[in-house]
Amino acid sequence: MTTAQSTQAPATATLTGQMIIAGEYVTGTGSAVHAINPATDERLQPAYAHGTAEDVAAATAAAAAAFATYRNTSSAQRAEFLTAIADNLDAAVDTLVARATAESGLPVPRITGEVGRTSGQLRLFASVLREGSWHGARIDPAQPDRTPLPRADIRQRKIALGPVAVFGASNFPLAFSVAGGDTASALAAGCPVVVKAHDAHPGTSELVGRAITEAVAATGMPAGTFSLLFGSGPELGIALVTDPNIKAVGFTGSRSGGTALVRAAATRPEPIPVYAEMSSINPVYPLPGALRSRAADLGRAFVGSLTMGSGQFCTNPGLIIAVDSPDLDTFIDAAAEAVRGSTPTPMLTPNIARTFAQGIDEFDGAATVVARGSETTSPNACRAALFSTDADTFLGSEQLQQEVFGSSSLVVKCRDQQQVRDVTAKLEGQLTATVHVDDTDHDDAGALLELLELKAGRILFNGWPTGVEVGHAMVHGGPYPSTSDSRTTSVGSLAIERFLRPVAYQDVPAGLLPPAIADGNPEQIWRRVDGELTRD
Amino acid sequence: MTTAQSTQAPATATLTGQMIIAGEYVTGTGSAVHAINPATDERLQPAYAHGTAEDVAAATAAAAAAFATYRNTSSAQRAEFLTAIADNLDAAVDTLVARATAESGLPVPRITGEVGRTSGQLRLFASVLREGSWHGARIDPAQPDRTPLPRADIRQRKIALGPVAVFGASNFPLAFSVAGGDTASALAAGCPVVVKAHDAHPGTSELVGRAITEAVAATGMPAGTFSLLFGSGPELGIALVTDPNIKAVGFTGSRSGGTALVRAAATRPEPIPVYAEMSSINPVYPLPGALRSRAADLGRAFVGSLTMGSGQFCTNPGLIIAVDSPDLDTFIDAAAEAVRGSTPTPMLTPNIARTFAQGIDEFDGAATVVARGSETTSPNACRAALFSTDADTFLGSEQLQQEVFGSSSLVVKCRDQQQVRDVTAKLEGQLTATVHVDDTDHDDAGALLELLELKAGRILFNGWPTGVEVGHAMVHGGPYPSTSDSRTTSVGSLAIERFLRPVAYQDVPAGLLPPAIADGNPEQIWRRVDGELTRD
Repeated sequence: MTTAQSTQAPATATLTGQMIIAGEYVTGTGSAVHAINPATDERLQPAYAHGTAEDVAAATAAAAAAFATYRNTSSAQRAEFLTAIADNLDAAVDTLVARATAESGLPVPRITGEVGRTSGQLRLFASVLREGSWHGARIDPAQPDRTPLPRADIRQRKIALGPVAVFGASNFPLAFSVAGGDTASALAAGCPVVVKAHDAHPGTSELVGRAITEAVAATGMPAGTFSLLFGSGPELGIALVTDPNIKAVGFTGSRSGGTALVRAAATRPEPIPVYAEMSSINPVYPLPGALRSRAADLGRAFVGSLTMGSGQFCTNPGLIIAVDSPDLDTFIDAAAEAVRGSTPTPMLTPNIARTFAQGIDEFDGAATVVARGSETTSPNACRAALFSTDADTFLGSEQLQQEVFGSSSLVVKCRDQQQVRDVTAKLEGQLTATVHVDDTDHDDAGALLELLELKAGRILFNGWPTGVEVGHAMVHGGPYPSTSDSRTTSVGSLAIERFLRPVAYQDVPAGLLPPAIADGNPEQIWRRVDGELTRD
Repeated sequence: MTTAQSTQAPATATLTGQMIIAGEYVTGTGSAVHAINPATDERLQPAYAHGTAEDVAAATAAAAAAFATYRNTSSAQRAEFLTAIADNLDAAVDTLVARATAESGLPVPRITGEVGRTSGQLRLFASVLREGSWHGARIDPAQPDRTPLPRADIRQRKIALGPVAVFGASNFPLAFSVAGGDTASALAAGCPVVVKAHDAHPGTSELVGRAITEAVAATGMPAGTFSLLFGSGPELGIALVTDPNIKAVGFTGSRSGGTALVRAAATRPEPIPVYAEMSSINPVYPLPGALRSRAADLGRAFVGSLTMGSGQFCTNPGLIIAVDSPDLDTFIDAAAEAVRGSTPTPMLTPNIARTFAQGIDEFDGAATVVARGSETTSPNACRAALFSTDADTFLGSEQLQQEVFGSSSLVVKCRDQQQVRDVTAKLEGQLTATVHVDDTDHDDAGALLELLELKAGRILFNGWPTGVEVGHAMVHGGPYPSTSDSRTTSVGSLAIERFLRPVAYQDVPAGLLPPAIADGNPEQIWRRVDGELTRD
């Protein structure tokens, strides 16, 4: 570490403002930032000084050195490590909630839930490791007597890609940040992780970074398995993504930020994959039967989803597409009333609040304002906004097809169900699409589902897109620009696949074969032998 | 079709020089090319006129239209379709062998084998479809009583990406061309395919295109499921990759060609994945024990692999890395004798032969010439070449680390096993790495295997890299620049994954669920239910 002083790990939970490079606590030498409590505009201590290109190089070199050992730890060892991180987070829940609520303006129950979700994700990947299918083990046994040519013994398993750069997201200070889904799945795969913390919640990042660092030490992982850096996206972020030791990137954030990282990664001498989750307006389709039977209830429930967490979810419902009708008017009236009755809540940062207000202003000219949340003098508050327009205006306006990050949504009124489908066919890729139906909507819903499969990563019926279950079947992903890589998910157990690649072993002597593909199945995992799944 | 005349499908196997756009036979309006028999420099009839941007647009629009139907055909229907293509190819074997040997200069047994390999690949993907794991079906059942929040019913399956552009390769006129592994796996996934034929074997391409087109009609697939275009890479190829209807690309060819396609795809308004298999020199490691016990045999066998098919394999052994010793000299002497005794055979095209000769000339100054194949006056012949150098010279020369496509290989002499590993650590990504051992080499082999896992897609022991088995465990892929995407393979059943993406279905009514994730498992496939594999 040439650029900064090193100290021992702090004995208490007092925040130090330091980065963590391979187990060493390091004070940055760049410009310093403070977190801001967006509910009060209060500047939170301590200062977090940004790192430099030298800190990036130190962290990635340590990660590359750790990789040689870490990638060969057993599934059981990594499961123990992930569980230790989860335990540390759960034990620190009060400290985490206090700091993260102050840094984000998000309410205590939400952040308390997010701590549980974050430790739950780590435990999910521990279970994925113990189950063992992640190895992707395949064995095609030798056929020495095959004619005209004998067949060699060929075996396949998946191995870790290498050190991964993870970018903390503003809107989930825990679940999509330092120990979030990207970190959990990369560590599970056997990849060391270098995190660039988000400047909106550096204190939470430090606390979580410390929880990981302590787990690294307690479970005997190499120190370079984890590092935490502070810095700006265009500088330290790009340095990280273009560092030759980094082999993949996880990112959740804006379309412009994600696109910049994708470009930087693609133009490296050795291009690497970037998993960027970027932008989605998450269309909702209340079909005629559903509107007929429960328009007002749907309108109110919609606003509940729209205003939750100041609308700062990747899956926030930003678009309602429906056939114009008196029932749709009832839906809109109920939603408008709920919007007007909604209390503005703080957004994550002053900058996000400014960008939201700007986005609303720009929509104001392009669509009709149906309702706004109540006025407030609270700083950085999100006054919910509901707009409406017709399908032709929507399709003719690039503006109206953009995401406004926050509680803003647009109702697009269509002539008929065909126009609903025409509008849908022109949408960009989405994380989610939501359909509300009753029994009479079956045919319309079927025709819509056909289209939505090609537009979204998750299709849900009679619910709301906010709230992403962490499980085995979840897809939090979708076609561009909702993500940069539709072939995967950033939430759920399938996410581990992002950081693995297959290797074939042909006629490798038994004594050199890794356990996952060794004779006798010592790991007792599911393997595909001559194409058939078996645990024998 | 605005650009060209249409005719009925020819009744006989007489070649017409026409492209095939969604079942219609179309004569191109661009510049015309002829295949050349590289063994004789004879110009082969008929002329193949290149297509235009309008032909690309017609083919991709037809593919997009077909996609809506084709992606929803059942696994059984697509298996039947792939099998029909395979049957058609097997039935046409004599015609295919006659034309492909004339166009490629490759011998009859090789092309006969390649026809069988190509139909075998199609049958493998038919079996993958019938087995059903390709769906990636996952079900997390609802937990209505879970606290604090109930869990929704969430199901996941994989769906086809959309129309795929496939580029025929020069070196496998059948197995990596019109109906090769890219086409077979894309069609299996439910993706229509638009092929750009390689100008080196247009007649073979037409014959195979006809076999596919007849199978499309016979099994009732939509006409746009398959099209075959002729054209130049920089023009028609780039038009194809940047066409908004194309959603993924498969390519086997040069590093410069692959890189150009990757760039074009990455800078589209909607970037798409490119699976380009590009460049590999396939290091071979004869370890000291193996050399001690069988140096001369290894040297001769090496040259067998080196000169097979004029060295025009992606997996051709272009590098021997070993500790300098009298045993290594014995290996080199035996190899040199075999090289000198080797008969030059024609390369695929006059251009490839010229490029090979140029590459040899450039090596000539940078390394020591150990042996050349015999002189010949045959046109386009590949005179095998064996070079040697020391490790320091090798590491200092960018030139010597480049692939020379053809029967050229370089022996890198190292001081000790540590230097063997140092050289290996600096290699670029490779398709294969080969280790020759006997029992005394176990420790060295283990240390090398650790490194090779990070450098290659397939590691083989005591064999030769040429000859890629088509099965479930094969990986024909590897880190950049051997391919543009190390997370997959272009040979073997895993290749289908390249053209799929996951979609989650949350609380979707039973009547609208696709069979793969429906209640009661109507397809009787393996599914992951709450994380556990089951066929129930």
